[in-house]
Amino acid sequence: MTIKACGAHAADKPLEILDITRRAPGAHDVQIDIAYCGVCHSDLHQVRSEWAGTRYPCVPGHEIVGRVAAVGARVTAFKPGDLVGVGCLVDSCGQCEECGDGLENYCDNWVGTYNSPTPDAPGHTLGGYSQAIVVNERFVLRIRHPAQHLAAVAPLLCAGITTYSPLRHWRVGPGQKVGVVGIGGLGHMGIKLAHAMGAHVVAFTTSESKRAAATALGADEVVVSCNAGEMTAHVKSFDFILNTVAAPHDLDAFLALLKRDATMTLVGAPSSPHPSPNVFGLIMKRRALAGSLIGGIPETQEMLDFCAEHGIVADIELIRAGQINDAYERMLKGDVKYRFVIDIASLAG
Amino acid sequence: MTIKACGAHAADKPLEILDITRRAPGAHDVQIDIAYCGVCHSDLHQVRSEWAGTRYPCVPGHEIVGRVAAVGARVTAFKPGDLVGVGCLVDSCGQCEECGDGLENYCDNWVGTYNSPTPDAPGHTLGGYSQAIVVNERFVLRIRHPAQHLAAVAPLLCAGITTYSPLRHWRVGPGQKVGVVGIGGLGHMGIKLAHAMGAHVVAFTTSESKRAAATALGADEVVVSCNAGEMTAHVKSFDFILNTVAAPHDLDAFLALLKRDATMTLVGAPSSPHPSPNVFGLIMKRRALAGSLIGGIPETQEMLDFCAEHGIVADIELIRAGQINDAYERMLKGDVKYRFVIDIASLAG
Repeated sequence: MTIKACGAHAADKPLEILDITRRAPGAHDVQIDIAYCGVCHSDLHQVRSEWAGTRYPCVPGHEIVGRVAAVGARVTAFKPGDLVGVGCLVDSCGQCEECGDGLENYCDNWVGTYNSPTPDAPGHTLGGYSQAIVVNERFVLRIRHPAQHLAAVAPLLCAGITTYSPLRHWRVGPGQKVGVVGIGGLGHMGIKLAHAMGAHVVAFTTSESKRAAATALGADEVVVSCNAGEMTAHVKSFDFILNTVAAPHDLDAFLALLKRDATMTLVGAPSSPHPSPNVFGLIMKRRALAGSLIGGIPETQEMLDFCAEHGIVADIELIRAGQINDAYERMLKGDVKYRFVIDIASLAG
Repeated sequence: MTIKACGAHAADKPLEILDITRRAPGAHDVQIDIAYCGVCHSDLHQVRSEWAGTRYPCVPGHEIVGRVAAVGARVTAFKPGDLVGVGCLVDSCGQCEECGDGLENYCDNWVGTYNSPTPDAPGHTLGGYSQAIVVNERFVLRIRHPAQHLAAVAPLLCAGITTYSPLRHWRVGPGQKVGVVGIGGLGHMGIKLAHAMGAHVVAFTTSESKRAAATALGADEVVVSCNAGEMTAHVKSFDFILNTVAAPHDLDAFLALLKRDATMTLVGAPSSPHPSPNVFGLIMKRRALAGSLIGGIPETQEMLDFCAEHGIVADIELIRAGQINDAYERMLKGDVKYRFVIDIASLAG
């Protein structure tokens, strides 16, 4: 099957409309007509080869939603017409402890939705900036949101699960004070999710102008983190901090806000290192600095169901495929509230 | 009461024999004739004012063991002649959440055994390099080891509890693979304790020459950490790593050895920062980097009882008070197996 996609032929080339092929669905495959695909900052890093090892042509996109077009002979959980999603993973080894625990995201051999080796042409996976995708049923998620919200569901597949998983793992809930650092694609989901989990949510931003927006997203308090006085008022008071900022920054300022035994978890990886955290800051209150990567398939389904139940979607700006290069430039400037989503129907035009 | 002590009048002066005074025991105080005091690296940092804020005269020492000489009118738990110990803390606020949890070491207002403000002369606490000390009964520990082992019990009061507390907090036990980085005063206790807790213990050292010694301490395996091949063999295999090295070093090399969801805990604070840890290393396996500070009073008693039950003491080199300046120089070179302990009887000479 030959379809239209949006991708790049080299690190220094803009994205353009390409023809790519998808395999015919095998017995356990689900073929999906993609309706929308979210635009993640990782897409930009990968397509521009800012991380090592980008394979070209590169078709990014791992916040995929659409409808089932066809299913393989052995697929029973999905049928044509179902609303479904695909996130950052399309396969994993299925044998290791991580896979056994439903944490395929920590499998050493997981297959990314784009840029991972595959037997399919052209030898590496091609992502969701495309009209269709064929995925093993184990990596297909059911979407229970109303169909008219589908575009805004797309970012849940990466930004949603990347924030939901650590909030759940570190047991965020009622009675807790939780910080969310950064109010971008990830952070805006973190605020919505932590709020829905019942926590007292404090949003941290470097921008005075984001106060009202953070409150609208569900933050109980907003702290401008470059204001030392505001920060000091929160010293040793947080049960958990979710740090979504990938740019190198002073982690100590936030670690100092944790209570004894509390953790700050990073979900963004900076391209150059953060200033080295002060070890005294960890020792003096038995604090921890941790990391978290996306989430497993069972918890991604749990997250989607939680969001459907609580009426949670991302705040998005819908674009046509032809706008993707401009969207990347705006994303680099932080000029998006809070996630671009590509209307895949525009690929046909 | 005027007694002999060993301390310094300034950062650039050697330690010498001084006269100091101790308060008469109050209703809740225990007066202790000190028999032995361990020599901790913190003593050297403090007396040389390598940390800010050393008050002079400075009498270090927080690994104190001896016998009760007298008790206040309201003291019921101790009587003259009892073998007791005092560690890093001699008081705390008693009101905060940390104190309520028996984690006085994390109280914001704990009073250190030396260099903390006190109403007693000369206005700051004076430590265990001295013939006697008067301490509130809440901070006096019972020693159940045989009396002939008393000198080797002294280091348990800091080196012992500093390693025991994180091993317990992160639930080290049978079936687990636990690393101990550094084989010095702290590390040698970490190996003994983790071994006694039933874990499979891997000791990490930079020195080929320490292999046999680490095995003798109870390590099941010894890895020379500058040998890349040896390190690679242990990637993603540790349930917990206790890192006792205070010198700045590459944390990533050890973080990479942790399993998913495992923690490396630092108990040494470097005078200049470690190279900044790689965030990818934390994210890719949901790992954590944490810190831990000494331990609370209840768990210090638990540690002493655990050590008495398992026949655990420190490996020490007993010195006279007059040898302390030489001992500091040897400690700086790592030339001690594994802890100097001052025979306080030598102060009388």
